[in-house]
Amino acid sequence: MNIERFLTQSEGEWQSMRSGHSLAFKQFEEIISRISIKLIGKNDPEVLHILNCTSYSSHENALPIKMNWYSSSDWNENESYKNTSGECILIAIPTEKDKGMMLRSLGYLEPQKAISSYKFLSDGTFTLRTQYTGSYVEERIWFASENVRCRSSIIKTSESSGIMQTSFASEIRSINIKSKQETHF
Amino acid sequence: MNIERFLTQSEGEWQSMRSGHSLAFKQFEEIISRISIKLIGKNDPEVLHILNCTSYSSHENALPIKMNWYSSSDWNENESYKNTSGECILIAIPTEKDKGMMLRSLGYLEPQKAISSYKFLSDGTFTLRTQYTGSYVEERIWFASENVRCRSSIIKTSESSGIMQTSFASEIRSINIKSKQETHF
Repeated sequence: MNIERFLTQSEGEWQSMRSGHSLAFKQFEEIISRISIKLIGKNDPEVLHILNCTSYSSHENALPIKMNWYSSSDWNENESYKNTSGECILIAIPTEKDKGMMLRSLGYLEPQKAISSYKFLSDGTFTLRTQYTGSYVEERIWFASENVRCRSSIIKTSESSGIMQTSFASEIRSINIKSKQETHF
Repeated sequence: MNIERFLTQSEGEWQSMRSGHSLAFKQFEEIISRISIKLIGKNDPEVLHILNCTSYSSHENALPIKMNWYSSSDWNENESYKNTSGECILIAIPTEKDKGMMLRSLGYLEPQKAISSYKFLSDGTFTLRTQYTGSYVEERIWFASENVRCRSSIIKTSESSGIMQTSFASEIRSINIKSKQETHF
């Protein structure tokens, strides 16, 4: 597996069922999302802006994607459903065949820019590690089939290895959208 | 990672939060379990019985464990909580350093004996594949830290690659029990 193939496989519209596990409080959270992943050109103005803010500005191997999501969760402080939506740009910068860096306009956990490192495991599972100011996140994504992917995350406190929360998502591709996808690489 | 080290790391009492995703119906299931994993001797009568029913009866590398679980689920046909408990014996038979077979007295999905194949990924993640009569299950287990492990499963129909259900468990070791553990290998 390499990053270009992985991102191409991930492109499309996904219906996601996600479960969050809050380990200290033994609380479950259930989240239903629609996620859109689209390959975009490396000369996109937002991509150039992110690259120019880092030391990767002249990197020719940059592989950018845009992600949009709309989520509905069963859990919040008022015990009512909570809807959120968002958008971010991720730019993969391969440094070797099976590893590299991932720049994000928004972090998964904290609303700030982040630089992650990625690595593929021997079976093609994509793993991503991100250090935020107050936490550390390990994510992994693997394909169960062409149109079903699994995504897990582990959130740790950054000072120690204390694990605060885990999550797992089962994502099914919306087939109609996939047939319209174009590859920009 | 090798199987002996993996099973030794897994030994102990675990508190498990597990989420099931029924993909066709978009239904979540929440399961709280206590799981006990104990290394047992290869001359245990139940182990000898299982080995004698297979072609592995004379295998000197057999590594058996006994698992007990007590589970409480939020979902069943009557929409009330459902409690289940069970016990099974698993016998690992390594064939290479990072792969081998796993014999089970009970299958994960179907209440029948099963022979699975296991393989470790490059980061030490344990993966297990089992073919049952009516289905095919892929499981993976990885350690987030010494005392937290994650376990996912994907259940497919055996005739096609249709995916029926996924699950994910976050498991925390009960520390008091671990200090009493003995290694039988």
